[in-house]
Amino acid sequence: MSETKSTNIILFSGDYDKAMAAYIIANGAAAYDHEVTIFHTFWGLNALRKEEMVPVKKSFMEKMFGKMMPRGADKLGLSNMHFAGMGPKMIKGVMKKHNAMPLPDLIDMAKEQDVKLVACTMTMDLLGLHKDELMDEIEYAGVAAYLADAENGNVNLFI
Amino acid sequence: MSETKSTNIILFSGDYDKAMAAYIIANGAAAYDHEVTIFHTFWGLNALRKEEMVPVKKSFMEKMFGKMMPRGADKLGLSNMHFAGMGPKMIKGVMKKHNAMPLPDLIDMAKEQDVKLVACTMTMDLLGLHKDELMDEIEYAGVAAYLADAENGNVNLFI
Amino acid sequence: MSETKSTNIILFSGDYDKAMAAYIIANGAAAYDHEVTIFHTFWGLNALRKEEMVPVKKSFMEKMFGKMMPRGADKLGLSNMHFAGMGPKMIKGVMKKHNAMPLPDLIDMAKEQDVKLVACTMTMDLLGLHKDELMDEIEYAGVAAYLADAENGNVNLFI
Repeated sequence: MSETKSTNIILFSGDYDKAMAAYIIANGAAAYDHEVTIFHTFWGLNALRKEEMVPVKKSFMEKMFGKMMPRGADKLGLSNMHFAGMGPKMIKGVMKKHNAMPLPDLIDMAKEQDVKLVACTMTMDLLGLHKDELMDEIEYAGVAAYLADAENGNVNLFI
Repeated sequence: MSETKSTNIILFSGDYDKAMAAYIIANGAAAYDHEVTIFHTFWGLNALRKEEMVPVKKSFMEKMFGKMMPRGADKLGLSNMHFAGMGPKMIKGVMKKHNAMPLPDLIDMAKEQDVKLVACTMTMDLLGLHKDELMDEIEYAGVAAYLADAENGNVNLFI
Repeated sequence: MSETKSTNIILFSGDYDKAMAAYIIANGAAAYDHEVTIFHTFWGLNALRKEEMVPVKKSFMEKMFGKMMPRGADKLGLSNMHFAGMGPKMIKGVMKKHNAMPLPDLIDMAKEQDVKLVACTMTMDLLGLHKDELMDEIEYAGVAAYLADAENGNVNLFI
């Protein structure tokens, strides 16, 4: 039996370093011929936002959320409080020095490797995010679709 | 072979949004006929606390912890630092608008669907939480019981 | 068929309480004859640092990281913001009272039980950590080695 292995990552966090970890594991698993899905929910959705402001109709609350949340992978903050001040710049500085891939490149690589990028429709609603505000080439689904993938998965992670 | 699938979630976090994610996944999995367990440890125990103050004998340290930790699901804070200020109120506001279930309702639903809610006895000890302070209809166990469930589980998550 | 079960934990977090949870689960699984691996990446590497200052050649940025990050398991902070002030001391206080094992002892126990402690070489590079600065008796590997273990694992967690 040569079943395809599968890796299913829930990206809940909107932190730059955690999103990096998620995409590094996803790209690694795809290189090992796993079927890979990253299910973006809550703050993890921010990694999928377009950088430019997209004009969509929103309620007051939704506008607030839209403003407060970072617009796109390159704008995310760090998970580690002690680094919150200089954090992301510093990390990006050492990454450049070590030729490590920044998050937007890791996301591009994931797309090229056919990693399935999913946006959780329920939390999009909650945070007032519209499809027009998220990058192209992603899928939209809910917890049922996640479970259908994950219940047969080999590596299931919540990040 | 039609084995029952199983989902085992460790809820370590005491954040409102992370607890919501845990309970949404748990309720989804239960709807798909998984056997579902949420193992509450460390700050995740706060989601199981009764709202009312329960008089129990405590040491000074335990009293301190008891005061500093939120009493029950409705009192939890948010994981996302940028929202720490207005956070939970704002989320609850949009949730109401979208008819999304607040955390206490998600917990009730989990109970109705026979999701097994477990409180980690070792960390209860550590944080000075007594059984009288936690909601009824939950079970008490340690890491051994968690592992016995999870080692045969399909979806195992640490949240 | 009596296959050995396996538990594979990614320790991403550098928080004292999360590292405790990781090592408690790892020690429990080892006691149940699982093959257990803890893969330390990003801030989780700090749990493996030697307490003493080790003189190694570093760039300016690496020196900065080295200073800002806690040196060893005993120096880690707490994940819970509300406790950030008094946190670790308070937790260590109640742990002593309850005869719970502090983190450095949990790590020693894991070594005695042959839990495989792995340091992620890619993030070591990124944070400027050298092998001389990390404790002995650990292994060095990347995401490929993690996936090779985890894809056949029973309990896979990201902490």
